[in-house]
Amino acid sequence: MSRKEAILEAARELFNETSTQSSTTNHIAKAIGISPGNLHYHYKNREEIIRLLYIQMRKETTLSVDELPKSIATLHEHEKILIKVQWKYRFFFKEMLSLFARDSELEDLYIKDNIAHRRRIRQVLNNLIINEELTITDEEDIDFLVDSISLSWQFYSSLLHTIGQEVDADSVQKVIKYTSAAMKPYLTKKRK
Amino acid sequence: MSRKEAILEAARELFNETSTQSSTTNHIAKAIGISPGNLHYHYKNREEIIRLLYIQMRKETTLSVDELPKSIATLHEHEKILIKVQWKYRFFFKEMLSLFARDSELEDLYIKDNIAHRRRIRQVLNNLIINEELTITDEEDIDFLVDSISLSWQFYSSLLHTIGQEVDADSVQKVIKYTSAAMKPYLTKKRK
Repeated sequence: MSRKEAILEAARELFNETSTQSSTTNHIAKAIGISPGNLHYHYKNREEIIRLLYIQMRKETTLSVDELPKSIATLHEHEKILIKVQWKYRFFFKEMLSLFARDSELEDLYIKDNIAHRRRIRQVLNNLIINEELTITDEEDIDFLVDSISLSWQFYSSLLHTIGQEVDADSVQKVIKYTSAAMKPYLTKKRK
Repeated sequence: MSRKEAILEAARELFNETSTQSSTTNHIAKAIGISPGNLHYHYKNREEIIRLLYIQMRKETTLSVDELPKSIATLHEHEKILIKVQWKYRFFFKEMLSLFARDSELEDLYIKDNIAHRRRIRQVLNNLIINEELTITDEEDIDFLVDSISLSWQFYSSLLHTIGQEVDADSVQKVIKYTSAAMKPYLTKKRK
């Protein structure tokens, strides 16, 4: 691992353990035993580090349209992978809107990606309808499911936090149960 | 309005317009033309102001068990009131988890209230079942609805933000449509 990559890794871990607000570039430098000057040789500031971590996360999660799940079973497999990546970068989901308030470049990047992500969620739902796993006739119900899945993927760990439940690598898995429950009323007879 | 109340009001407006991170006690003092020393005579720090604003919001939203909606129509009336209060204190919902990271007293207070709020959501669903507006036989479906309503009430404006939609006093009303859509598969024949 290069020095440059090691800084990103140390930042990610510190952000997850504490918060981006309380982890300064000085703390990050200290965590891997380099000088603040050395860190700033590689990265301009904390915002740049956060942005690069976000881009790294995105690369680990985005599927091409060809690879999108075509059944509920493969959707769940895909969800398990996504949960692992989200857990790796959990600081991002915890602080999202505050991060945007501090960095509009990150905000613009994320919104653009998230709109594309919603199109993929809709495509997956269409796949499940075509393959007769779901039956949804009302366009409004599809809108609801897209919102519901998007809301839970972005904020389910926040929900756990706000009801005082432990947020750990196991409990965040419950989002799969949540998306299943959201789709349940729309399952075809063969899937029930 | 007393000086003490005027400070809270000015803080709320500044927090909504910018963020709690960028609104220092100096900015708040300046907004109503008093000295920082005068502000600190009334409030210890920004965290105390945020906590008092939260308690004020809670007083404006909490219904007693007796007053809980017993029909979908009265539920929607109640939701309209809640949306207005949430809009008034929107900084809180935007920054919630970052605020908790900075103030564990606020976090503890909120989690306790939110657990009680979930019990009230469940009680409202029970009222709707008793009054034959909803049919829910599976306990897991009730759990899903409680999660879904709780998730949307806390994070719907964040969802709008993350898809680049304008977050304003009108668009946040869409959460009512969202909760209706969540309950739709469980409506009894007389409500369909």
